[in-house]
This record gives sequence, C-alpha cells and structure tokens, in this order.
Amino acid sequence: MSDLDRALAAADDSLDKSLERLFALLRIPSISTDPAYRNGCREAADWLRRDLATLGFAAELRETPGHPIVLAKQPRPDGPNVLFYGHYDVQPVDPLEKWETPPFEPRIAATKAGRQIIVARGASDDKGQVMTFVEACRAWKAATGSLPCGVTMVIEGEEESGSVNLPGFLEEAREELSADVALVCDTTMWAEGAPAITSSLRGLLYEEVTVRAADRDLHSGMYGGAARNPLHVLARIVADLHDEQGRVTLPGFYEGVPNIPEEVREQWRGLGLDAETFLGPIGLSVPAGETDRMVIEQIQSRPTCDVNGLWGGYTGAGAKTVIPSEAQAKISFRLVGDQDPAAIRQAFRAFVRERTPADCKVEFTGHKGSRAIQLPFDSPALAKARTALEAEWGVAPVTIGSGGSIPVVGDFKRTLGLDALLVGFALDDDRIHSPNEKYDLESFRKGTRSWIRILAALAG
Amino acid sequence: MSDLDRALAAADDSLDKSLERLFALLRIPSISTDPAYRNGCREAADWLRRDLATLGFAAELRETPGHPIVLAKQPRPDGPNVLFYGHYDVQPVDPLEKWETPPFEPRIAATKAGRQIIVARGASDDKGQVMTFVEACRAWKAATGSLPCGVTMVIEGEEESGSVNLPGFLEEAREELSADVALVCDTTMWAEGAPAITSSLRGLLYEEVTVRAADRDLHSGMYGGAARNPLHVLARIVADLHDEQGRVTLPGFYEGVPNIPEEVREQWRGLGLDAETFLGPIGLSVPAGETDRMVIEQIQSRPTCDVNGLWGGYTGAGAKTVIPSEAQAKISFRLVGDQDPAAIRQAFRAFVRERTPADCKVEFTGHKGSRAIQLPFDSPALAKARTALEAEWGVAPVTIGSGGSIPVVGDFKRTLGLDALLVGFALDDDRIHSPNEKYDLESFRKGTRSWIRILAALAG
Repeated sequence: MSDLDRALAAADDSLDKSLERLFALLRIPSISTDPAYRNGCREAADWLRRDLATLGFAAELRETPGHPIVLAKQPRPDGPNVLFYGHYDVQPVDPLEKWETPPFEPRIAATKAGRQIIVARGASDDKGQVMTFVEACRAWKAATGSLPCGVTMVIEGEEESGSVNLPGFLEEAREELSADVALVCDTTMWAEGAPAITSSLRGLLYEEVTVRAADRDLHSGMYGGAARNPLHVLARIVADLHDEQGRVTLPGFYEGVPNIPEEVREQWRGLGLDAETFLGPIGLSVPAGETDRMVIEQIQSRPTCDVNGLWGGYTGAGAKTVIPSEAQAKISFRLVGDQDPAAIRQAFRAFVRERTPADCKVEFTGHKGSRAIQLPFDSPALAKARTALEAEWGVAPVTIGSGGSIPVVGDFKRTLGLDALLVGFALDDDRIHSPNEKYDLESFRKGTRSWIRILAALAG
Repeated sequence: MSDLDRALAAADDSLDKSLERLFALLRIPSISTDPAYRNGCREAADWLRRDLATLGFAAELRETPGHPIVLAKQPRPDGPNVLFYGHYDVQPVDPLEKWETPPFEPRIAATKAGRQIIVARGASDDKGQVMTFVEACRAWKAATGSLPCGVTMVIEGEEESGSVNLPGFLEEAREELSADVALVCDTTMWAEGAPAITSSLRGLLYEEVTVRAADRDLHSGMYGGAARNPLHVLARIVADLHDEQGRVTLPGFYEGVPNIPEEVREQWRGLGLDAETFLGPIGLSVPAGETDRMVIEQIQSRPTCDVNGLWGGYTGAGAKTVIPSEAQAKISFRLVGDQDPAAIRQAFRAFVRERTPADCKVEFTGHKGSRAIQLPFDSPALAKARTALEAEWGVAPVTIGSGGSIPVVGDFKRTLGLDALLVGFALDDDRIHSPNEKYDLESFRKGTRSWIRILAALAG
C-alpha cells in the first residue's frame, strides 16, 4: 500500500472526527464586517492556531489593526513548498428569519435530491473549504508521520470585509512566506461531481453613498412637491447606471475589458450553460445582463454593477408620510481584464455628483478595490493538480473563470511573485452569503482526498 | 367684566396647570401605526376620557377593531352645537438617535430666536392642538360654570395610520354627533403671530410595493450580471415616476387637477413665499417640484408623489456583496381638486407592473385613499371665527390651502352633512413627523384663548 493510499485511507477512517472538528469551527460566529463579532473572529483564529499546532505546525496569531491572521509553518528545506490561503471569517447572517435553523448551529441535512449537506454560515465559504486542506495534512501526518511537501498556511479573518490588512502582512512576512506555489481554496466546482480549476477572477470595487437633502425628516403633506426627496435622487442615479441593453453607463467603464475570442465563446456555448440551467435553480429565467452576451459571459468575462443595499425613510410597519433627510446605498462593481478600480471609482463618484442637486450633499465611503486576475494556463503545478483531481473524481477538471473576486491572488503575485492554484469544492447552489448556506458532505470528503492527492502530485 | 373676559383670565391664570396636563398626555407613547404601542394608545384615550369627565362631559371610549375613539358629549338643546375633532395618536419616533431628548419626555426649551417651545412627539401633532380646545372648555367652565355652546368631542387614535375605523364609527354614531358645525384643530398658522383658517386640503393615496426576484439572496460575484436585482427594478420605477420637469408621469394623473385662476396666483405671489423663505429654514434652496410652478402652488394646489421609504439588501455596517431577493418601497401621492384616488391607485399599479420583468413578482399593499377637500369661503361660522381670531391675534387670519390631508373633513361632510372649520396653531417649523417635534408655548397659550373667543362667537 503506497503512502498516498495510506493517507487516503486515514482520511476516510477519520471522517466523523473530521466533521466534529469542522462543526466546532462552524459554531464560532466569526462575522468580520460587524464589530459586534470581534471576539468571535479571535476565537475562530485561536481555534485554528491550536488545531494546527497539534499537526506539528509552528502556529501563531499575527495581530493586525483588524482581526488576527493565523500563520502556520511546516516548511521543507528540500522543498517543494506550498503556501496555502484561506479565511476563517464569514458573512453576516441577515435576514436571520430566513434560516431554517440557527446559522451557527451546524447540522447534517439532506437535499430534495438526497445529497447529504452540512448547513451553517461558513460551511462552504470558507471554513468547510479550509478544513478540507487541514484534514488532508492531518491524514498525511497520521499515515506517514510527515507532510509530502513543505506547507505554510495563511488563514485570514477579513476576507469578507475587504482583506484590508492582508497586503501589509504579506509585505512584512515576505521572507517567511517563500514557497513554490500558492494554493487557494475559496472557489467552486464546475458542477456536482465535476471538479474545476479556476484560472481567472473578476476584480471588485465597492462604494457606499449617502445623499443628504433637508436637515431633518419632513412631513410630505407640508413639504411634498417643493422639498427634494433624497430617495428620488438616489433612485435616479441607480436607474441611470444601466442602459436599456443592460450595459453600465459610467464613462470609460469598458476600457480594458478584453474581447473574448470567438473560438472561446464557441467552447463556452458548448458547455450549455443557458439561462434556464443557470437561473432556473434560483427561481429566475430572464438574464438581466447585457442583452448581446451569453449568460456564461455575463457572469465570467463581463464587468457588472450591482446595488447590494439601498435604504432611506420609514421602513417600519404601516404608513408614515415622511420625506427623509437622507438616503444611502452600497454599490459594487465586478471588474475584468485591465479595468482600473481607481479610475472607475473616480468615474462613479463624478457620475453621482453630476446627478446630485445643488442643495443636496453627497458622501462616499470607498472600500479597497481589486483588479481582475488571469492565471497562466500552462504551469507545471496546474498540470499536476489536473491529474490529481481527475484521479479522485474520475473526470478531468474544467478550467473556468470565476465571477467572484479573491484579491489575495493578486497580492500573492505582486508581493511574493507567486502564481496561485485555485481549487475549490463549493457548488453554485451552496447559498454562500445567503440564508441556509451549505456544503455538500461529498465536497468535504472528496475535497479532503483531492488535496491529499494534490500534495502528493506537487511533491513528486 | 364679561363672561368672555372672565374665561380668558381663567385660562391665563391656570396656564401652568394646563401645561402639566399637556405634559401628562405627551408622556404617553401612543404610536398608532406600530402594534407594539397598542397599550400606549389605550392609555392616552383613557387619560382624555377621565379628564373630559371632570369638565362635565359624558365621556366614554368607543371600541373599534383598532384603537378606541374618545367620545365626549355636553350638548345644548337650545344650541348652537359644535362637533370638535382631534386625534390622540402620534407618528413613530424614528430616527430616535436624532432626538436631543427622549420623545416622550416633554420639556420647555427655547429656540435660537428666544421663542419658548414645548418639545415632544405629539407636542404639535396633535396632542398640543387638542388640548388648546380642551383647556378653552375648562376655562369657560371655571369662569361661568358652563360652556357657551353645546360641545361634542370625537378624538380618535388612528389618524396617523389612516383613520381606517373612523368612517364606520361616524356612520353608527350619526345621531349622537348631530351639530351645527365641525371644528378641526390639526392645521397650521400662516406664520408666527399670523393666524390662518384652512379652506382646502390635499387628498392622499398611500401604497406599499414589494418586488421579488430570485428565491434567495445571491452572491453578486457568482450571479452578478445575469441575475435580476430587485433594487435596480424598483429604482427604475421610482425614477420613472417623475419627468425632467418634475411632473408625475402616471397616465391620467393630472385629470381633475384644477387650474388656479391668474388672479389667485397673483394673490399668492403677493404673499412672497419664495423658495428661499420656504426651503431656507430646512437647509434647502432649489424647489424640487414642477419647474413651471411657484413654491406655494407646488405645496398647496398641485398634486405630488413622494417615496416615504425604500429598502432592500444589506444595510448593516461594512461591505456585503449580495444581490437581494426583494426590495420594498412606501410611496404616497398628495391629491388635489377632483383627482380620484381609486383611479390613480390603478394607474400606479399598472405603471409598476409594466416595469417589472417577466420573472419577478410584485405585491401591493394599499392604504385608505382620500380625495382633496375644498371648504366654502362664505359660511357664517367662518366669518365669526375670523372675527374672533383677529380679536386675539390683532391681525386678520389668512385663508390658506393646506398641503396636508385630513380625510375626516370629507367624512364629516359625507356622513354628517357638516362643514368643518379648520383652525390650528401649529407652525411650519414644528417638525411634526420628525425628530424634536415642538409646539410654540405661544401657540398653546393664544390657541387656547382663540378657542375661548371662537366658542363665544359661535354662541352669539
């Protein structure tokens, strides 16, 4: 029996214990964007530090102005060495009333189709995915007493709130983080049973806007018709952001957006990801994006603009005839190719100011922006991972672009000169960032086995 | 010394006790639109019942499916008899953080200009105004042992939530409510020191809209570009409701809107209510309404549309990249002339449906609508009130139109065949429906004296 087979067997034998450990981590409410959960974030970080120490890692918490970063080192002088990245923080849980069970009380459930799933906030994004790699290392240790290659882990606690302190940390810890390749486990599979390696990521720009009109809330009977309503102003701005064809109207927005070669579009057409297939499962059928693009283009290769939140005035029960003094919105842009977040932020703010009446005030809060990323299709690491994934799943992995954004991949390249290998086992129906988030038990089990194989392949 | 002078003196002598009584009523949180304050509403109603009983009124609570109505009777067979209307319920207090002191802890403060004011939710709308009439009755009782004319009071607890149960009550209590004229104290003065009689009121139509897209909140990276964002849909609808000239775009909206005769506009021009005078005090300067209308027209004689509340998606601290599954808005219309609330409700819902994508759902919650009201300029009661107000304030009252809506005035006419006399002592800067609502101490004091005189005038 080979070391690899022993490691795979060790993982299978300890599945129940692996789940107990994942559940323990899922019970910790580590919502990074909400200051109320500061302690929960530290608790999750410390839980990981302690667990990794038991696997022989030199594990510690590196403090930041925000939440601590878990740094765990078990390098091999003779190499090869990998740098694994994940995050222990999770998204807020609202709307809480839409959860079938409390978000931080993990449970095993079954889908209508009979698939076993792990339900909890963070089950998929990203605690479940992080633990597939941790359990892979544990299995190697149990089976052979060592890891097939050197491993350093960076598990941050601010991914869901913009990773503001990560670049600074990477800069400082540069020497300690040297490796041959970065492994990132925060992406999806192509479909159930069909593994994927992600080769491109959309960038992100996130802006918060506040429009202020009168210096107090007004009675709409007394002032209606004469006094400016900031909700009207903000609604007009949001409506103006897209044209009839679903294109974003910001001047210069499409500068740097690459044209997809016709042969690639042909391949994509072949994947058969039509509106029905993609939108049907979430109760929709009419693609909302650019009318001249396929759904797969809209979500992978085209930039977007979405209002993630908007509010103002009376939102309680019943009727209140008020003209609010202010209205607010959270608006984000997904970026592709060479789109420049800084330039688009400028264009956006100018666009908003142009549409703000002379006697209204507008305020912006900008979050960290990230450019889109394209990874090389031909790295040796990618070839090895492809072989390993095919061995585990019985089908060759699809190389896909992701609509999501993982800024750290760009930071790894810029700061550490490292290319990243993006392999994840989440599924499109995992409801990440939504109520009743889940992770397939099979994603957790075969994900762990996949990493066991990938580590072996990279070592060989 | 005449009875009138004795009554006026009695009011002046007991001002402090009058304020104590008003404060006691203001301390009761009677927010009718919020079920959490059900008990507060009943408590306010019962407080009034008990106080009116001490003035010799046959006072009782009439139950409704909602909040009880205070009915207090002290008629005179020999007449004349007046029917007084007011309401004991108040608006919600949000945003609470903008109150300088707790909304239900009334206090005397001073404006920058040195005017003494009563600060509390309901100080002006409508508890303070109601008590000017109650204290006027008390002064007559103290001075002469009786009221100069028969008085019946109807003080409801659902004015701020649409007066849904009042019409039914008026229908049932028809016989008990017979009178010569109705008195309504829920309106404003023309300006500080300048009394007014309101001769017209705008109608009101209030609609709640919910737009639903996907069956769950979505991750904007995974679905952005393809999945419909209900906030975009709702923003487009709101933006489409007005054109570049500030006109409401609903088909047929302006049917029944009267043209104001040029001589009347000329008079209005003479009042010098320009944008600066009207908008300056609330921190604005650019009129938002129809560009071809004077501010005074925009708020008195023209219909309007305002979004009173709009919300959807993530509204907490920090960034969340979500595409919400639904977005909601509360939208109201102020109506004038013969505009038909039912027809406009229909036009509005059709307008919204036309702009809702095929795979989205839209739901409406309609509140009771009311037509605009025009009162006769030439009733004897109005002439008497004018004389009484001039005697108290030293200037003749202005006859004005109000931008607000008091549906009960129409119900009085329809159900009881009564014309109403609308006299109130609120000021435009009272911040009704807003944080730090206030009522000028002078409005309370001279308002009480004004009612003492009006009762005498109507008796004569």
